[in-house]
Amino acid sequence: MENFTFQNGTKIIFGKDTELQVGEESIAYGKKLLLHYGGGSIKESGLYDTIIKSLQEHDIEVYELGGVKPNPRISLVREGVALCKEHNLDFILAVGGGSVIDSAKAIAAGAKYEGDVWDFFTGESPVTECMPIGVVLTIPAAGSETSTGTVVTNEEGWYKRATGHSKMRPQFAIMNPVLTYTLPSYQTACGITDMMAHILERYFTNEKNVELTDRLCEATLKTIINNAHIVLDDPSNYAARAEIMWSGTIAHNDLLSTGRTGDWASHDIEHEISGIYDIAHGAGLAIIFPAWMKYVYKHDINRFAQFANRVWDVELDLNDLEKTALTGINKMEQFFNSIGMPTSLAEVEIGDEHFAEMAKKATERWPLGNFVKLHEEDVYKIYQIAK
Amino acid sequence: MENFTFQNGTKIIFGKDTELQVGEESIAYGKKLLLHYGGGSIKESGLYDTIIKSLQEHDIEVYELGGVKPNPRISLVREGVALCKEHNLDFILAVGGGSVIDSAKAIAAGAKYEGDVWDFFTGESPVTECMPIGVVLTIPAAGSETSTGTVVTNEEGWYKRATGHSKMRPQFAIMNPVLTYTLPSYQTACGITDMMAHILERYFTNEKNVELTDRLCEATLKTIINNAHIVLDDPSNYAARAEIMWSGTIAHNDLLSTGRTGDWASHDIEHEISGIYDIAHGAGLAIIFPAWMKYVYKHDINRFAQFANRVWDVELDLNDLEKTALTGINKMEQFFNSIGMPTSLAEVEIGDEHFAEMAKKATERWPLGNFVKLHEEDVYKIYQIAK
Repeated sequence: MENFTFQNGTKIIFGKDTELQVGEESIAYGKKLLLHYGGGSIKESGLYDTIIKSLQEHDIEVYELGGVKPNPRISLVREGVALCKEHNLDFILAVGGGSVIDSAKAIAAGAKYEGDVWDFFTGESPVTECMPIGVVLTIPAAGSETSTGTVVTNEEGWYKRATGHSKMRPQFAIMNPVLTYTLPSYQTACGITDMMAHILERYFTNEKNVELTDRLCEATLKTIINNAHIVLDDPSNYAARAEIMWSGTIAHNDLLSTGRTGDWASHDIEHEISGIYDIAHGAGLAIIFPAWMKYVYKHDINRFAQFANRVWDVELDLNDLEKTALTGINKMEQFFNSIGMPTSLAEVEIGDEHFAEMAKKATERWPLGNFVKLHEEDVYKIYQIAK
Repeated sequence: MENFTFQNGTKIIFGKDTELQVGEESIAYGKKLLLHYGGGSIKESGLYDTIIKSLQEHDIEVYELGGVKPNPRISLVREGVALCKEHNLDFILAVGGGSVIDSAKAIAAGAKYEGDVWDFFTGESPVTECMPIGVVLTIPAAGSETSTGTVVTNEEGWYKRATGHSKMRPQFAIMNPVLTYTLPSYQTACGITDMMAHILERYFTNEKNVELTDRLCEATLKTIINNAHIVLDDPSNYAARAEIMWSGTIAHNDLLSTGRTGDWASHDIEHEISGIYDIAHGAGLAIIFPAWMKYVYKHDINRFAQFANRVWDVELDLNDLEKTALTGINKMEQFFNSIGMPTSLAEVEIGDEHFAEMAKKATERWPLGNFVKLHEEDVYKIYQIAK
């Protein structure tokens, strides 16, 4: 086990009707708040009204910025930064999924910085200060509700880049599974894939002595897999929605990283695709992860065999662990297909015309991954496998 | 899944040489510190000197109170409270295991209270304020390093009672598995039993929709079981010591309680034994838990069969799940015996002369447990089974 520091103080308020507590939780951080959200769905569902009412009951002055798109844009982040600076706001309340939360995190850092907020994403400047953030989660997927990271897209050049800081971790996350009943199937499946990918990135490590975190990863993956079809077949199944929602947080709250170095190449390889093509991040991951696995599994066949056995119930073939490993990868692909996810670029009508450019952009700062270090030509080959 | 609130902000600093960071971590809480510890073992091992040096490097003024015994006593807590009040101390650093940390938590609350600190344990007064606490953990067992609870024994009447508050949760916990190499086998085994018991108390719930937390409980139990004999056979095995140490925290940091109500009767039933007889808490749990299981398993045979199957690798006998359940309980007893724990009161030379008194004391405030509510006569019968 590697040395580690772990601290995650986000207050989780989980369950039915918990959104009614948003005013009470927010007032601890000040009287002037930026309410940040995406499209109109929170207005249609009535969530917007519930939240405004709760905030008003605590005499909180609300400034609004809606319009966050999937793969959130730096242009809107800049608007948010300007609003926070102009009105000297105390707190940002993100109502939505990963894109809204990531956008809020970028605003939170940008509002405390003299320069341009994109500097944090290029490495030009480190994040040092942040406004406090709270979350009402409506899409379980990104795990951003308790994480320290944010991913934002710059429309100039379609760069999709990540940054992070411990001060970006939300102060609280209100999570009511009922709010996820109305998520369309495709978005539900994308979320499921995203949270599984967060665990897989951590699972494939070169550290050998990680039994507890291996088992915790496997436990969370199995729970997600077992509940995926239930929520797709019966979107208002509270028990299954709750399992998926809480699993999405556990997948990405850093517990599963303790004592091990994860990989993260697949996320970077996918970011180039969803940066250019604007496809859903989850769908991109369902395409890239199996391709990445097929490219790297020989690096540690035993780990892939363990994954196949413990997560996908593939019987261990001790005479042919490679077969066991490959069966596990196939089972994962079949699972992604079964929940309506693509597992090839062809299925989302992406051709090979940008492969060279994406491979170059993905690796222009440094090689990707830790389990196996990937250079430009490796990434190119993974795009080929994913065709 | 039940509604829940979960927040655990303790900073975990885990790994080799991490005790060297104690001064740097402590100085954030003030210049005047109470160093609280048990017997002389930290002086023999050199840990005491390492800590003093690190604190001095940060110009921290150190007041000392050693002498915490297993089943920490209210008399020493009162001494600590007086010291903190007299010298207006800022911070308490607990160096040791659960007893030292629990004693420190009681001091931390008592120092901010006008009345007598035992009031918190009788329910006479609730905890409202606490001094901040830090921990250097030397015995993985109690999970007190990130928990909100404390258990203290009052020598007048030998009452062993618990209390807790979110402000009792330590600010940081420094955990170096190397510091546990010198733990005697018996103490190591008691710790293993204690952490397993913390999980079992949570595992046996009446809430049906708890797949994620069930699996996380099972993952942690399996890790502890798989590493127990390794650390007993090879006390300096870093990898296994690390698995056990981190599992002990996960067992009791409240993650495994999310969305479910645990039982906790076995802890209360055991407290009466170790309150009177001063045997190790872990040994008492190894005796009481199997007895409790035999008394209550019919309440939910399927849950006990799942436990047998997933934790103890007992094949499910779908024609006789009761047999599966009982085989699991037997396997657990065999495991406790195999690590040198007693599983009957006779093995620790405790007769039945206090059964009636203990059953009465254990239930004098309210019935015990949640999975099955236990009254005085039930507790008496469990002591009989444990004979």
